[in-house]
Amino acid sequence: MSHRNTAECGSETSAAPEKHEVRAENNPTFLSRMRSIVSFYICYMLCLGLGLACVVCVCVWNSQWRGGFAWDGSALQFNWHPVLMVTGLVVLYGNGAVLYRVPLTWGQNKLPWKLLHATLMFLALVLSIVGLCAVFGFHNAKSIANLYSLHSWIGIAAVALFAIQWVVGMAGFLLPCSPISLRALLKPVHVWMGGSILWLSIAACISGINEKLFFVLTGTQAYTNLPSEALLGNSLGVLIVAFGLVVLMILSNHKWQRPDSSPEVLAYTPILQEENE
Amino acid sequence: MSHRNTAECGSETSAAPEKHEVRAENNPTFLSRMRSIVSFYICYMLCLGLGLACVVCVCVWNSQWRGGFAWDGSALQFNWHPVLMVTGLVVLYGNGAVLYRVPLTWGQNKLPWKLLHATLMFLALVLSIVGLCAVFGFHNAKSIANLYSLHSWIGIAAVALFAIQWVVGMAGFLLPCSPISLRALLKPVHVWMGGSILWLSIAACISGINEKLFFVLTGTQAYTNLPSEALLGNSLGVLIVAFGLVVLMILSNHKWQRPDSSPEVLAYTPILQEENE
Repeated sequence: MSHRNTAECGSETSAAPEKHEVRAENNPTFLSRMRSIVSFYICYMLCLGLGLACVVCVCVWNSQWRGGFAWDGSALQFNWHPVLMVTGLVVLYGNGAVLYRVPLTWGQNKLPWKLLHATLMFLALVLSIVGLCAVFGFHNAKSIANLYSLHSWIGIAAVALFAIQWVVGMAGFLLPCSPISLRALLKPVHVWMGGSILWLSIAACISGINEKLFFVLTGTQAYTNLPSEALLGNSLGVLIVAFGLVVLMILSNHKWQRPDSSPEVLAYTPILQEENE
Repeated sequence: MSHRNTAECGSETSAAPEKHEVRAENNPTFLSRMRSIVSFYICYMLCLGLGLACVVCVCVWNSQWRGGFAWDGSALQFNWHPVLMVTGLVVLYGNGAVLYRVPLTWGQNKLPWKLLHATLMFLALVLSIVGLCAVFGFHNAKSIANLYSLHSWIGIAAVALFAIQWVVGMAGFLLPCSPISLRALLKPVHVWMGGSILWLSIAACISGINEKLFFVLTGTQAYTNLPSEALLGNSLGVLIVAFGLVVLMILSNHKWQRPDSSPEVLAYTPILQEENE
């Protein structure tokens, strides 16, 4: 971006603007940055596409194969649970996590993007909590015990950690009274915990889909015979894992971290690097 | 370490050795590095302790609650499956992944540690493959279909990716004919794929333990009543997740990356940073 600006400035002051343009575009740093941005957007499109595929897949499964939705304590209430957990705790959460990596947001004031990050995460948290209410309500109406399976332990841990992460993140990174030194300390923990919550959520989804398919597929439609519903459920699991892999790849690539607006910060300064993670 | 050496050299040439010693130890960089090393070893002890707890827990579950081990196509053959997958694909794999982070290995030739990393990973891969043979043999003896559940899809994907990762890692990082440019390209992919395989393995373990507890706990000992075996199985899942969180925390902390032996490399140089990840 800065190289493009240099070329444009050159065109205003120089007698040979095209030459400057060519030089900027042949500059290895410029080409490498362009390649990095293009490869980011390919991954980001993949992330958006896989996220959308997850939401469509979980909605189709629960509306077409499981009978649709209601909020009456029946199995139709339960159907909200997978839809809301996959949409909130995985897809919306993953998209909120990679927001700062979008080059479109770079070079702008970080605050509006922080607010959007916090808002997306808040929506993801609300959907997850409503998803938990759906399953608790269904269990209570049918006198089924709550929180006994390993799936439920991992899922509730993921949502609880997410809630703590949101509150601590809000207090640490958005309250004006929060000191810079606290933010610098908090940042690597926030980043590590953010990634951990995502893979914990995915582990909960995988175990939940697996459990549900064993529960509902019996007789001639047994899970072992891989009927179409089993293929759909397994495909949903594979899509969720693929989405998680792409999100964690985007988060782990140092080249895609948001650089600070001033060029000096591109030099190696650990605290600022952490601030930009 | 280098500060300690500076202090020791000083003590040989200076008239006031104690003063030099005090100066080195009061140096903020030295103190910060010592704090970093101490906090690493605390996490590393936690990693070793949790890994050991996972192995003990899965062995106790399958020997005391599930009847022990055999290789005869019976349920006792199946019991090898969780033991070998948890020990190989999670605990040994996780310990192999954090090997380069141990400060004891820093400042030494990297090759022996690369060989140890490759050997630990090879052992982990062998245990995982034997673990798969245990379940395939049991299924075939009982005429149960293979690879139908989401658990099995995720598990087989984790082992297949692990095998590819090992072969590509061996060719890319250990063969002398492999060019430095290829290693620099391969390194971030190897690091990202390494972390991904670990959380994929953990997702497979969580769904497998959950599925097994639903299968075997019925009647008065139903899973919903949380009998002692359910608590043990759920605790194994929690221990595995805690182990994964600690391993991924160690891997994500930039301060704990192996620095190169020459001090110049401590300056920011992206390729070498990647080489040291």
